[in-house]
Amino acid sequence: MIGSGEVTSIRSPRVKAVRQLARRSSRQRTRLFLAEGPQAVREALAWGQDAAPQDSDGARGVVTELFVTAEVRSRHDELTARAAAQGVPVLVVSGQVMAELAQTITPQGLLAVCRFIDVPLERLTAASPRLVVLLANVRDPGNAGTVLRTADAAGADGVVFSDASVDPYNSKCVRASAGSLFHLAVVAGSPLRQAAAALRGAGLQILAAEGGAVRELDELESDGVLGRPTAWLFGNEAWGLPADLLAAADQAVAVPIYGRAESLNLAAAAAVCLYASARARRG
Amino acid sequence: MIGSGEVTSIRSPRVKAVRQLARRSSRQRTRLFLAEGPQAVREALAWGQDAAPQDSDGARGVVTELFVTAEVRSRHDELTARAAAQGVPVLVVSGQVMAELAQTITPQGLLAVCRFIDVPLERLTAASPRLVVLLANVRDPGNAGTVLRTADAAGADGVVFSDASVDPYNSKCVRASAGSLFHLAVVAGSPLRQAAAALRGAGLQILAAEGGAVRELDELESDGVLGRPTAWLFGNEAWGLPADLLAAADQAVAVPIYGRAESLNLAAAAAVCLYASARARRG
Repeated sequence: MIGSGEVTSIRSPRVKAVRQLARRSSRQRTRLFLAEGPQAVREALAWGQDAAPQDSDGARGVVTELFVTAEVRSRHDELTARAAAQGVPVLVVSGQVMAELAQTITPQGLLAVCRFIDVPLERLTAASPRLVVLLANVRDPGNAGTVLRTADAAGADGVVFSDASVDPYNSKCVRASAGSLFHLAVVAGSPLRQAAAALRGAGLQILAAEGGAVRELDELESDGVLGRPTAWLFGNEAWGLPADLLAAADQAVAVPIYGRAESLNLAAAAAVCLYASARARRG
Repeated sequence: MIGSGEVTSIRSPRVKAVRQLARRSSRQRTRLFLAEGPQAVREALAWGQDAAPQDSDGARGVVTELFVTAEVRSRHDELTARAAAQGVPVLVVSGQVMAELAQTITPQGLLAVCRFIDVPLERLTAASPRLVVLLANVRDPGNAGTVLRTADAAGADGVVFSDASVDPYNSKCVRASAGSLFHLAVVAGSPLRQAAAALRGAGLQILAAEGGAVRELDELESDGVLGRPTAWLFGNEAWGLPADLLAAADQAVAVPIYGRAESLNLAAAAAVCLYASARARRG
């Protein structure tokens, strides 16, 4: 249903359908998710614009609908124009409807319904990746989204969300990724051990970040180990990594703790590890 | 009022007084804050136990009251015993009362009322610090708490919260710090420019983390600049640092972005910068 219009009732079937995308089960069923705010919407509209058309109805992007308040439309007319140029229906909604649709307490007045963009693991491994993140049982969507953003910044090729990890399309994860969800190859719901095996099969060493490990990150950096193609394995915020996975990794690596903190937050540890790899690759 | 007891009514004046500590104004007036969960309570009870008595009534710790559910008391009797040994009243509360007191959706059944522990800036500068964080207008309590935790892990001596930054005693900040609030010298509410001047007066170079800076972190690392005593200046999540502060810093430094992310999350950028300093100091 291409075209633009105005939606003012929170009882509109369209509003109801979009609201349901807050639930993972609805996202899984429809293979649609929400991207909120100008930054995410900009990245969503830019996605795949240099690629071939993906869709039989001619739409080549990932955005299927764009909701915007009148006020924000005037501030971001470049985005609504770009959406219209892609054949994306732009729906002007009242502030009340936007508040109903948005997952945030202070909605930014702009919300895109997007198609899933994750890729099969084989597509990532076939692309000769040099830096990959494998999230094992990571449950906090803010942490996962921050890791996505940091992985993007560090020049990683992809992020694999194992099947027991948070959904990458969770609204908090999308928001914390600050657009990076649209930049990297994201693999969703891979069985963890199979993913680790496939990444190793593609020539990547598996480095497991583990606070209690004997080997410290700085040693690996001096030894030249970090310059090799690497998949960093990060575990759950509270429980760490399962023993069998740790044992199967090429190395378990600790970020050194110089002060009295027990450990680092997952996203902080990932930042230190991924930037160590980025430096080693370029150094 | 030393002693232990049982509180079962959410209308108890004690419960009401503690609930008010969720508000910054009440914290400021009473100079008390809340630490939730076993880890934070353990650190709070350990605080200052090697120092001289601080208080005319003989209590030398920071905890003034400990609330615990019956269930959690049996699981953490070492903590309630330690509290009792310090003369801290231990109050057994129902799950309903704990839910009323706690700032979290899933309360951990253990909550300490603590005295403020921040120190004047002069105490931090007098201690010849080598690594300090100065938070300028940082508003997100989760980010601020994560930076505290990371600063602790990287061996920093203190964290200064400028007057326009979030309150370090905000419950989300306390929680994200994972006990590190009790490990470092925390300075609260310093006027930003005076704090920067005082830190420089104490012999620290001011390095301003700024995504758009021309000099990159890796250059400074190679040049040996990072080995010097340093105060890292981190700005607001959205707006960055004020121009005059940037101009007054010894260097503005960018964490390099290798991929397509626009920037790093504040806590991730701080992790990369602080660990670069920690490495340089020890390298």
